[in-house]
Amino acid sequence: MQITSAFDSGNIDVVSIEDAANIQLTIRADHNTEKFQWFHFALHGAAGQDCRLNLTNAGSAAYVDGWKDYHAVASYDRETWFRVETEFDGSTLTILHTPERNQVHYAYFAPYTSERHHDLIAACQDDDRVYYQSLGLTPDGQSLDLLRIGSPDEGKKVCWIIARQHPGETMAQWWMEGCLAALLDDADAVSHALLSQCVFYLVPNMNPDGSRRGHLRHNAHGTDLNRAWRQPSLETSPEVFHVRQKMEQTGVDFFLDVHGDEGLPYNFIAGAEGIPSWSEHKQAQLDGFKQALVAASPEFQTEFGYDVDAPGQANLDIGSNFIAQHFDCLSMTLEMPFKDNAALPNPIVGWSPERAAAFAPANLKALLACLQQQLL
Amino acid sequence: MQITSAFDSGNIDVVSIEDAANIQLTIRADHNTEKFQWFHFALHGAAGQDCRLNLTNAGSAAYVDGWKDYHAVASYDRETWFRVETEFDGSTLTILHTPERNQVHYAYFAPYTSERHHDLIAACQDDDRVYYQSLGLTPDGQSLDLLRIGSPDEGKKVCWIIARQHPGETMAQWWMEGCLAALLDDADAVSHALLSQCVFYLVPNMNPDGSRRGHLRHNAHGTDLNRAWRQPSLETSPEVFHVRQKMEQTGVDFFLDVHGDEGLPYNFIAGAEGIPSWSEHKQAQLDGFKQALVAASPEFQTEFGYDVDAPGQANLDIGSNFIAQHFDCLSMTLEMPFKDNAALPNPIVGWSPERAAAFAPANLKALLACLQQQLL
Amino acid sequence: MQITSAFDSGNIDVVSIEDAANIQLTIRADHNTEKFQWFHFALHGAAGQDCRLNLTNAGSAAYVDGWKDYHAVASYDRETWFRVETEFDGSTLTILHTPERNQVHYAYFAPYTSERHHDLIAACQDDDRVYYQSLGLTPDGQSLDLLRIGSPDEGKKVCWIIARQHPGETMAQWWMEGCLAALLDDADAVSHALLSQCVFYLVPNMNPDGSRRGHLRHNAHGTDLNRAWRQPSLETSPEVFHVRQKMEQTGVDFFLDVHGDEGLPYNFIAGAEGIPSWSEHKQAQLDGFKQALVAASPEFQTEFGYDVDAPGQANLDIGSNFIAQHFDCLSMTLEMPFKDNAALPNPIVGWSPERAAAFAPANLKALLACLQQQLL
Amino acid sequence: MQITSAFDSGNIDVVSIEDAANIQLTIRADHNTEKFQWFHFALHGAAGQDCRLNLTNAGSAAYVDGWKDYHAVASYDRETWFRVETEFDGSTLTILHTPERNQVHYAYFAPYTSERHHDLIAACQDDDRVYYQSLGLTPDGQSLDLLRIGSPDEGKKVCWIIARQHPGETMAQWWMEGCLAALLDDADAVSHALLSQCVFYLVPNMNPDGSRRGHLRHNAHGTDLNRAWRQPSLETSPEVFHVRQKMEQTGVDFFLDVHGDEGLPYNFIAGAEGIPSWSEHKQAQLDGFKQALVAASPEFQTEFGYDVDAPGQANLDIGSNFIAQHFDCLSMTLEMPFKDNAALPNPIVGWSPERAAAFAPANLKALLACLQQQLL
Ligand SMILES: [Ca+2]
Ligand SMILES: [Ca+2]
Ligand SMILES: [Ca+2]
Ligand SMILES: [Ca+2]
Repeated sequence: MQITSAFDSGNIDVVSIEDAANIQLTIRADHNTEKFQWFHFALHGAAGQDCRLNLTNAGSAAYVDGWKDYHAVASYDRETWFRVETEFDGSTLTILHTPERNQVHYAYFAPYTSERHHDLIAACQDDDRVYYQSLGLTPDGQSLDLLRIGSPDEGKKVCWIIARQHPGETMAQWWMEGCLAALLDDADAVSHALLSQCVFYLVPNMNPDGSRRGHLRHNAHGTDLNRAWRQPSLETSPEVFHVRQKMEQTGVDFFLDVHGDEGLPYNFIAGAEGIPSWSEHKQAQLDGFKQALVAASPEFQTEFGYDVDAPGQANLDIGSNFIAQHFDCLSMTLEMPFKDNAALPNPIVGWSPERAAAFAPANLKALLACLQQQLL
Repeated sequence: MQITSAFDSGNIDVVSIEDAANIQLTIRADHNTEKFQWFHFALHGAAGQDCRLNLTNAGSAAYVDGWKDYHAVASYDRETWFRVETEFDGSTLTILHTPERNQVHYAYFAPYTSERHHDLIAACQDDDRVYYQSLGLTPDGQSLDLLRIGSPDEGKKVCWIIARQHPGETMAQWWMEGCLAALLDDADAVSHALLSQCVFYLVPNMNPDGSRRGHLRHNAHGTDLNRAWRQPSLETSPEVFHVRQKMEQTGVDFFLDVHGDEGLPYNFIAGAEGIPSWSEHKQAQLDGFKQALVAASPEFQTEFGYDVDAPGQANLDIGSNFIAQHFDCLSMTLEMPFKDNAALPNPIVGWSPERAAAFAPANLKALLACLQQQLL
Repeated sequence: MQITSAFDSGNIDVVSIEDAANIQLTIRADHNTEKFQWFHFALHGAAGQDCRLNLTNAGSAAYVDGWKDYHAVASYDRETWFRVETEFDGSTLTILHTPERNQVHYAYFAPYTSERHHDLIAACQDDDRVYYQSLGLTPDGQSLDLLRIGSPDEGKKVCWIIARQHPGETMAQWWMEGCLAALLDDADAVSHALLSQCVFYLVPNMNPDGSRRGHLRHNAHGTDLNRAWRQPSLETSPEVFHVRQKMEQTGVDFFLDVHGDEGLPYNFIAGAEGIPSWSEHKQAQLDGFKQALVAASPEFQTEFGYDVDAPGQANLDIGSNFIAQHFDCLSMTLEMPFKDNAALPNPIVGWSPERAAAFAPANLKALLACLQQQLL
Repeated sequence: MQITSAFDSGNIDVVSIEDAANIQLTIRADHNTEKFQWFHFALHGAAGQDCRLNLTNAGSAAYVDGWKDYHAVASYDRETWFRVETEFDGSTLTILHTPERNQVHYAYFAPYTSERHHDLIAACQDDDRVYYQSLGLTPDGQSLDLLRIGSPDEGKKVCWIIARQHPGETMAQWWMEGCLAALLDDADAVSHALLSQCVFYLVPNMNPDGSRRGHLRHNAHGTDLNRAWRQPSLETSPEVFHVRQKMEQTGVDFFLDVHGDEGLPYNFIAGAEGIPSWSEHKQAQLDGFKQALVAASPEFQTEFGYDVDAPGQANLDIGSNFIAQHFDCLSMTLEMPFKDNAALPNPIVGWSPERAAAFAPANLKALLACLQQQLL
C-alpha cells in the first residue's frame, strides 16, 4: 500500500500507512504559510480493503466548519468524482472507503489540473473569436493567461470575470470552463445577445502557481491574492499587479470574482456594500443581479451568505471591494460550495464540476437581464 | 449531374437537370393531399458549377409567405447545415449555389431522419431513468414512441410534450432532442427541480410516417393530425387516437405541442384563448408561462404571433385547444421559425437544429417558474 | 406487445404475437423473388418476458445451413449488437430471449443502414483527398456512389473494391468502413505506402435499393447483381452496368468483391480458378494474396472455403470471375461469416461490425505485400 | 513576449527575448548531469512575428547528430503537433517560425505529459481485464505503475514491455498507448490470439520523475536507468530495482524495451548479440521477430540500426542485454526516430504520436508470428 501526491495539485503528508484501518495523514500547509485545507492524493494497492484515512490535523485547518457535513471526493478514472463517507470528530477528518480498484484518488474537491488549464487556454486561443494575452509571469514562471471574447468597441460594456484567486477552490475554474463554453457556443442565445453589447475579459486561473502546488489560498510566495488588490506588488503578488494594470487600460463595467466557500452549502453572492462609495444605485445593481440569478437558476439563492459589511467598513484589499470602489461598477464575489447545494442536494456527487459548469451560463443570463433592465 | 431524393424524408420531383443554370424541380405534395412545402434532395456531380435550382411550383405551396426572406439550407456532410442564397419571384423559388463538392444536400430545414429518431428512442429507453412504451402502430406500421421521464406519483404534475404532428417541422424534433438531453442531464438544476414535482410524457415524433415520407403536414393517410384531436380515428389518425387514450389514463396538467411556422421569423406561443372554458386563471397561466419564457431566453418574444381566437371560437380539433378544454389545463402550441429569429438573427445558419435544441431548456425553465409561482 | 419493421432494412411478417412464448413470424422474400434469409425487426413491450420468436419459414430460406450453429443478434441501443440464444429444428428458427428493455431490435446480422451509408459517403466526399462520383441511378432512384482515393497516375495500379452486391451481407459494408478509415488515416503506414503506388476506386454499397428494402441478395427488380456481370442491363441491373462502364474507363489491376457467407464460420477467399484464361501467374497472384492475408491477420485462413471451379467452368456472370477474365487481373471474392469465426471464436458478439472493420486493413496489408513481391 | 516552461516536462532557459529575430535560449541539463537535448517551452505574444529561436548550446547536446536534418515540433492547441523550419550550424539550433497565434508550444518531440500518463493508468486500471499494481515509489515520490493484461497461467508466455527509461523519448509512451489500446480492443484479432497464449506486464513509463522534470535520459537522481540493470539500487535507481524484483517473481519469456533514437531516421531493433549466452537459437528468435516486424509494417526495416556488439562484449547494465542474459529469453530494444522515418517520410508531422501508436500493434503482430513459428 502506498500513498502518492507528487502530481499536479497533489497535497498530503504521510505519517503512517501500515494499517489500512488506521492510515495517518496530515494536510500540508500552503508554502510560507500555516494555512491548509486542500488535499489531493492517490492510494495504491488497497483494493477491497476497508480503509480509514485519518487526516489528523484537520482540526487546525483554515476553515474547520468546512468539515461539518462534508464528504470527500474520490475517483478511479480521474474523471468521475463521487462522494465517500467522511467523519469529523473535531480534530481528525476520517475518510471511510473500501476501494474497488488498486488505485483511487481522493481530494477535497474534484481537482482542476494545470494541464487542463493549459489545454483550455490552448483550445480557446486557437479560436478566431478569442484574443489571448499573457499578462505577465507568476513567481513560479508561469504565464498569467487572459482571454478576451468579443471586440472592444465604443459603448460596449467591459466585463471582467476572474477565477481561482484561491487555487484550492477548483469549482471556480470548472465554472469558468462552463462560462467559456457558453460564450463560444454559436447556438447560445444569451451569449449571442451579450456579445453584441459587451466585451469579456476572462482570467480562468488567477493563481496558477498555487494551483500546481496544491495550495488552498496562496500563491507561490504565500500571498493571499484576494488581500492584495489595493497595493499589489510585482514581487509578492504579480498576478494581481498584472491584472489591475490591464484593467486600468480597459476600464471595468462589470466584475465577477469566482470562488468556493468551505463552510456554507449554498451558492451565494457577496457584494461590496461596505465600500465608501456605496450608493442606492449600486445596491439596485447588486439586487438586480442577484434577483436575476435567482430567476435564472434553482442553484442560486439569497437567503444564506456572508454578513454584509457595515457602511464604510469594506476591506479594500479584497478584489471585488477594490474594483467596486476604484472602477465604480457592479463588482461581486460569487461563492460556490465545497459540500453540496443544500437547496438542491445530490448526495452522490455533491456540488460537482458538472454542476459548477452548468451554473455558469445562468450568471451570464443574469448579466443580460441587468443590461436589459439598464442597470449597467 | 443527378438529383436524388429516394432517402428518408427526401421529397422532390425532377423536371429537368440538363442545364445547371436552369434546373427545374417541383415539390411533391403530401400523399393524398395537394399540400406541399417540404423539400429535401441531393445534387450530385455539380461541384464548381453555378447552379440555379428552380422550384417552379413554389407559388402554389401551402404557405407562400414562407418563401419571403427565406433561405434554403444546404450541407455537404449532412451534419452542418448552412443557408444559401434563395430568391422567390411569386411563383418560383430559386436556390442559387455553386457547390464546392460533388454531392450536396438541400432541404427546407435541416432534416431530422427516422434513423436519428430511432437512435434517440433507443438511447433513451436504454437509460434506467426512462420508461419507454410504444403506444400503437402508425398506418405505415411504425411504432408510436412514448418516453416517460420520472415516476408518476400522487401530487406530481403530469406534463405532456409532443412534437412534429407536422412532420416537415423538423425543428420540433431538434427541440425535443434538446429537451430530452436537459431532462436526463444530472447536472441540470432545472430538470432536477422539475423531476421532483413532475412526471414527463414525451412523444418526440407524433408523425413518424409523414417524417419518413418527406411530408409537410400529414400522416400516411393524408390526415392533418393537428385537426384530429376531437374525434381521432383509429383508421385515419391512429397517432392522435393512441396518444389521447394514454392521456385519459395519465391525466394532463401541462401540455406543450412543439411546431414550426413557415411564415413568421420568430419563436412564439399560441394559447387556447378561444376555448369555451377559457378563464382568468387560464389567462394567468398562459401569461405566466410566456413571461417566464421571455425571461428565460432572448430567443423568445410575445410581440409577434398568431391572432388570438375570439372567445369561444377555438377550433377544438387542434391539439392544444382540445387538451386545454378537455383536461382543463395549461395547454399551448410552441412555434419556431423555418427562417431565422429576426429578434436575434444569424444569417449563416438562420434558425437551426442547434438553436432549437438550445432553446428547449428555456421552456423547461419557464415551466419551473410557473410551478414556483403556483400557476399550475 | 408489437413487432415493427417499417424502417430502413426492416424485414419480417408478423403471423401472431398474442403469446410471448410463441411469437410467430415469417421472413419476407426479396421483391420479385422467392429467396429470403435477412430479417430485421423491433419487439416492443416485452421487457422481462421470456420470449420465443419463431421464424416459421426458416426451413425454406435461401441457405438453410446458415441456421446451423447460428445465433441471432440483438440490440437495445442499436449500436451494440450481441448474440442471443437461437435454435433451429430444421424448419423453424427460434430466438429465445428475455429482453431487459421495452424495445429490442433483432436482426440476421448487425444492420448497416442507408443513413449510415449516406453519412459515410458525405463525410468522405467532404475530404479533400477523396473524389466522389455518382455513377448513375438505381431502380429506386438512389445514387450509386463511387469514392476515389488517391490520384490516377501513369504506373499506378488501379484497385477496385466493391461491397454489398448482396445487401443482406451487411458485414461487407462494415468492412468497407474499416477500409476507408484505414485509407484515410494519415498515420496508417500501409495506406501511406499503398497510395504512392495505387489509386483506389471503392463502391461501399453496390446495392442501395436492396439494402434499404431489407433484401438478402437482390436489387429492387429482384436481380442478383452478382449474376449480371457478363451482360449487365441498364434496366434490370443498372448498378453493375454503371460500375462496369466506369471500369472500362479506368482499367482494373486488382479487384476485391466483399461478401458474407451464410454457412461457413470462417473468413475465406474465392478465386477465379475456373476462368478460361486462368494461368500459373494468376494462381501465383491468388496464392500470394491469400498467404499474405494469412500472415496479416489471425482472422483469415485458407483451409475452409468454396470448392474451386473446374478449369474453364467458372460462371462469368459472377463479378470476380468476369473481371478476372475481362481485365486479366487479380480478382477475388472475400467472404466473411454471418456466424462467428470458428478459428477465433467470440461467443458474445460472434463475427461483428467491429471485427469486420478491424479485418479490412489486413486486406490492404496483403495487397501491399503482393505489390512488394511484384505479383501485380 | 514571454517564454515559459514551468509546466509538466517543460525545459528551457531564457537568455534573451528582447528581439523576436534573435531569441536566445539554452537547453537545461538533466538534474545532476551535464547531458541535455530535450526542450519544451511556450512562446507568448509573438503572433505574426518572424521569430528566430536560437538554442545556443545545441552543439553541446548529448547527441549532436540528432540536429542533422531535424525539425522541431510546434503546436497551438497542444494536441496537433507539426514540424517547423529548423537549422543547425554546428553549434546553434535555430527554429524559424512565424506563429499564427499568441501562444505556441515548441518541443523536441510531441510531449507525453504526466497527467496523460495518470489518465492512461487510471482508465486502464478501471477496466476489469487489467490488474494494476504500483511497484514502488520513485525518488520524487511517484508511483511506478505496472499494468497486467491477461491472467497468468501455466504454459502462458510472460511478456514484459517497458517504455521511456529515457523520459525525453516520449514516442515510447505514445507507442505504449497504441499497444494498450490494441491489447484492450475486443475486435483486435491479434490481441485476442495473443491473450490466449500470453500474459502481458507493461510499464508504460519507467521514468515518471524524469518525464515530469523535462529530462532527456535520467531519473531525479541523475541516473541513466538503462545503465542500472545489473546492479539496480533502491537509492539511485529504484525504478529498475522494483521492476527487476517483480520480474524475478513472474519470470520473463519476452522483453521489449521501447526507446527513441536521436540520430537515425528509422525504426529499428537492437538485439542482445553481445551477451555471454548468445546462441543460434537466440539469433533465430531475434531474426524471426525482426522479419515478422518487417512483414507486419512498412514502418520497420533492418538495414539501418546500431552496430552489433562483438561476442561477449554486451554491456549487461543495459536492460535488454541484462534480461536476455538473466532470463535467457528474447529481449530487444525497439528504437523509433525523433526525426522522421526516412523509409516512409511525412514532412508535415515527421515521426509522430499517431504513427508511434499505430506502429505498436505491428509489434504485437510480430510477437504472434514468433509464437506461431514456435520461436518462443
Ligand atoms: Ca475564496
Ligand atoms: Ca405546425
Ligand atoms: Ca454473397
Ligand atoms: Ca534511449
